[in-house]
Amino acid sequence: MGVRYKLGCELSYEVQGPTVFIFNLEVAKLQRHRDLTEHLTITPDHSRRSYVVPDIHNRYFALSAEAGPLQVKYEAEVTLDVFRADPDTIRETPLEALPLDIMPFLLPSRFVSSDRLSAFAQKEFGQLPKGHNRVTAICNWIYDNLDYQPGSSDSQTTADESLILRAGVCRDFAHLGTAFCRALNIPARFVSCYAYGLEPRDFHAVFEAYLDGRWWLFDATRQANLDGLVRIGVGRDAAEIAFATPFGPFQPGPIKITIDHADGSPELPGRTTDAISTEEPAPNAGAN
Amino acid sequence: MGVRYKLGCELSYEVQGPTVFIFNLEVAKLQRHRDLTEHLTITPDHSRRSYVVPDIHNRYFALSAEAGPLQVKYEAEVTLDVFRADPDTIRETPLEALPLDIMPFLLPSRFVSSDRLSAFAQKEFGQLPKGHNRVTAICNWIYDNLDYQPGSSDSQTTADESLILRAGVCRDFAHLGTAFCRALNIPARFVSCYAYGLEPRDFHAVFEAYLDGRWWLFDATRQANLDGLVRIGVGRDAAEIAFATPFGPFQPGPIKITIDHADGSPELPGRTTDAISTEEPAPNAGAN
Amino acid sequence: MGVRYKLGCELSYEVQGPTVFIFNLEVAKLQRHRDLTEHLTITPDHSRRSYVVPDIHNRYFALSAEAGPLQVKYEAEVTLDVFRADPDTIRETPLEALPLDIMPFLLPSRFVSSDRLSAFAQKEFGQLPKGHNRVTAICNWIYDNLDYQPGSSDSQTTADESLILRAGVCRDFAHLGTAFCRALNIPARFVSCYAYGLEPRDFHAVFEAYLDGRWWLFDATRQANLDGLVRIGVGRDAAEIAFATPFGPFQPGPIKITIDHADGSPELPGRTTDAISTEEPAPNAGAN
Amino acid sequence: MGVRYKLGCELSYEVQGPTVFIFNLEVAKLQRHRDLTEHLTITPDHSRRSYVVPDIHNRYFALSAEAGPLQVKYEAEVTLDVFRADPDTIRETPLEALPLDIMPFLLPSRFVSSDRLSAFAQKEFGQLPKGHNRVTAICNWIYDNLDYQPGSSDSQTTADESLILRAGVCRDFAHLGTAFCRALNIPARFVSCYAYGLEPRDFHAVFEAYLDGRWWLFDATRQANLDGLVRIGVGRDAAEIAFATPFGPFQPGPIKITIDHADGSPELPGRTTDAISTEEPAPNAGAN
Repeated sequence: MGVRYKLGCELSYEVQGPTVFIFNLEVAKLQRHRDLTEHLTITPDHSRRSYVVPDIHNRYFALSAEAGPLQVKYEAEVTLDVFRADPDTIRETPLEALPLDIMPFLLPSRFVSSDRLSAFAQKEFGQLPKGHNRVTAICNWIYDNLDYQPGSSDSQTTADESLILRAGVCRDFAHLGTAFCRALNIPARFVSCYAYGLEPRDFHAVFEAYLDGRWWLFDATRQANLDGLVRIGVGRDAAEIAFATPFGPFQPGPIKITIDHADGSPELPGRTTDAISTEEPAPNAGAN
Repeated sequence: MGVRYKLGCELSYEVQGPTVFIFNLEVAKLQRHRDLTEHLTITPDHSRRSYVVPDIHNRYFALSAEAGPLQVKYEAEVTLDVFRADPDTIRETPLEALPLDIMPFLLPSRFVSSDRLSAFAQKEFGQLPKGHNRVTAICNWIYDNLDYQPGSSDSQTTADESLILRAGVCRDFAHLGTAFCRALNIPARFVSCYAYGLEPRDFHAVFEAYLDGRWWLFDATRQANLDGLVRIGVGRDAAEIAFATPFGPFQPGPIKITIDHADGSPELPGRTTDAISTEEPAPNAGAN
Repeated sequence: MGVRYKLGCELSYEVQGPTVFIFNLEVAKLQRHRDLTEHLTITPDHSRRSYVVPDIHNRYFALSAEAGPLQVKYEAEVTLDVFRADPDTIRETPLEALPLDIMPFLLPSRFVSSDRLSAFAQKEFGQLPKGHNRVTAICNWIYDNLDYQPGSSDSQTTADESLILRAGVCRDFAHLGTAFCRALNIPARFVSCYAYGLEPRDFHAVFEAYLDGRWWLFDATRQANLDGLVRIGVGRDAAEIAFATPFGPFQPGPIKITIDHADGSPELPGRTTDAISTEEPAPNAGAN
Repeated sequence: MGVRYKLGCELSYEVQGPTVFIFNLEVAKLQRHRDLTEHLTITPDHSRRSYVVPDIHNRYFALSAEAGPLQVKYEAEVTLDVFRADPDTIRETPLEALPLDIMPFLLPSRFVSSDRLSAFAQKEFGQLPKGHNRVTAICNWIYDNLDYQPGSSDSQTTADESLILRAGVCRDFAHLGTAFCRALNIPARFVSCYAYGLEPRDFHAVFEAYLDGRWWLFDATRQANLDGLVRIGVGRDAAEIAFATPFGPFQPGPIKITIDHADGSPELPGRTTDAISTEEPAPNAGAN
């Protein structure tokens, strides 16, 4: 079951002095990421430290580079076995039933200024029927009201700024979707991924909302298919899951991202109308 | 060993409709919080769900209240056995030796806009010798340059705003100290606590910086003694560890916080010149 | 012709040390403010300096107060002879025909962050037919999308913040209307006035847009009638025409504003559907 | 008396559709700008409208361009006869003696957020002796605390952001100097000019403070000599006196600015220690 993808990335840097890099670019080891094989090549070779966040499954590795060229190449194959459901059947989890470990995803974070957007979110989405379709309505609103416009934002742009500027890139669309959800008391988190069908090829950012005991994927940019997203990391916002967080002086070089059907089949699937999740139900859902 | 405190709080609300409350006001179960006895009374009685954050030890409990009065009373006794060291001996942990699970405390968060303050922090503190004394210098700078001024900030005030306004309360002083540390690549986190000697009595906010493999306490307000802080929670910033996070309509009533020597001894200790920690060394320090 | 109003205000202060006050509360001497009689009483008596801004007609007076009580009482009668037109006939003045002395009212100012709102304004109003009705559409949008909510803003709130918060008072509604106009290259300015029918009685803020060679009044709050606004001042935004700008320590006392029909007739007129101006055509319109 | 300069600029644009340009690049006709000769060439030729702001002397001209190349060339010669004084003799004008027409230069404007900086300004400069030397101290503080760093700001950067970022260009240094002055109740305004000795050659921005009945020049960047600044315009901030304000689609081409001694003498004068003004005393100073 599932679709097998061959994917990877190549990052290159001209390091200009001692620099610690923390990377988050490996495929998350989820149950629904089946039969993962992968290979990571650092040139020149460096010892690495690695860390997997419990529950969340983000995989970080760190290395200390000296001045000179640095190349990171990651290649993987994975079978993505998404969970599908009829969106009409997915209700919102009432606050009183939310697992408490999910609470941080209700709170504002650096780029997800949900505390400033509560009136906005209530006015636009507060009267809609609760459930998966309400979050889809949020995505539709963002798609209709913001321009996808490279160069319109930078690494410090917050959700409320994107809303004022009415423009952004995938990062900003995901931050704003996350912000509206949190403002409505729907837990939401930022997701980085390899996205099948995305043009031009790049790392992609989408978001997940917690509904009916499970995290569901949403993409307000409509640039990739929900059932072709191979997750790297999840976090409060973009700060937590940058694909590279360098501490030190460097010049970035070219970046190359790939994701293809492992069997070489060329066709692009049509956009699914199913609700899509790559998570199992939250272990604590309804329990505590 | 240690000093035994008798402490607690009484919170009261006039709930105006169905409201979920999440509280974070119980004493954290740290090794150095010895012989904790405690009693929590909710009036009227409510079933509660509770959650302790792994590693971090924050204790949350949630309840669903209907319209009407709600009172939360917490009473505890605990022996606080702080760890003391000579500040001159405490170095900064180099980036390449930082445990990766501490990385989130290097990142900007909602109220700790450290990404905007890197030039400021470098210019003011970048040339100082690294170590515990540098963080003390940050605290001194904040104490000297900001006015402690109730009413000068609100629940959305960020560290860079406090810096511009040159005023704030304990929350803002802690956010700014945290922000300067993170901007200098020193992991730092926000701390809520019962503070012996604080006048007027209230919940207090300070911060911790991670140095030499351990979290150390700092208080830029100088309003309480570092060796008399009984920790409730730690977090990226104030959003994560509000003593109460209510979802629903309510009016707050009076709040009462107490902390006294358990044996009734009246004297206020002098301010310590030791470096103070209530944490054990980080389990991963230097390991991965 | 016109309607005669009896109006005034009483301001009181407890001055706590040497304080210079600049006031802008006298009725502007416009041609359409006919037969103005007025009386200003300062208690205790102070010498005043006064200044009338050329073309703009704002009237400022300044005084230097010592510690002690200060009371300012202004009483006036004026016949307001508004200019009325059919809104459908009022076109926008094309940029190439705008008098250059009106240019400052196209620029962003402290609270009118029109430079940040250009995409927003273009998306919401860019496709509407140009003219008086487009500015009415802006007012309708603000009325429909923002809550009039005392306490939701403060003296530093900007138009883009009001848009995010979806709430404000008359000052904020006027700033946002002004910002949208400027973002669409329609000159617009902030107006302070005595407003017949406003409840509760207070100073009121509305805005004017320059269309078809003349300044026209707009009120996005719908709290007063456009044909019952007696102008005090116009400016780039609220900063320029505060009714009182004090430099020094003081406590404000009660404020009382009145405006009634001079003949005592009680009835409140219905809301006009005419376009309303209290200005003559701009002297330079089309000339240079 | 004075030094004769030969100066000018060449601006080029590729206009992409009907565009109205407003330019403010001609030398202001001040008494101390003696024997001005000038020549303006627009290619292709366009009819222009022009406007000189009363009292302020800013000269604007506007033209309506169609798609195609547009070149603006301005050449002038002028003898700059600066007024010099001993800075130690220049007091601050007390608030109660400030001409009321200067009041707008005490108020915050779009990029001069002086209302947010009052505590900051009071803490840093509030205790210094009042007078010209206090404004020089402000400039020294800015020079010492901010990096002159092209690319560190953009056209929406405000004074409080520059203060946080600790970096900027001449525009930002002037905004911050202006903001600190206004926060201290010293009228201040933004100045655009041709600056003798500036490298690389470009339009320059400095500021003026109103002291002892006259406007005095200040340059916190120390990049040009105060006695070699030929004024173009003054305004509340950069928004009012952009050298070009285009309304429509265009691509900017190369810009060339020149300023040399008219007699070809090569030497660069040393930095003056005099206080420098190019204004006569304010006509209303002390009068009303």
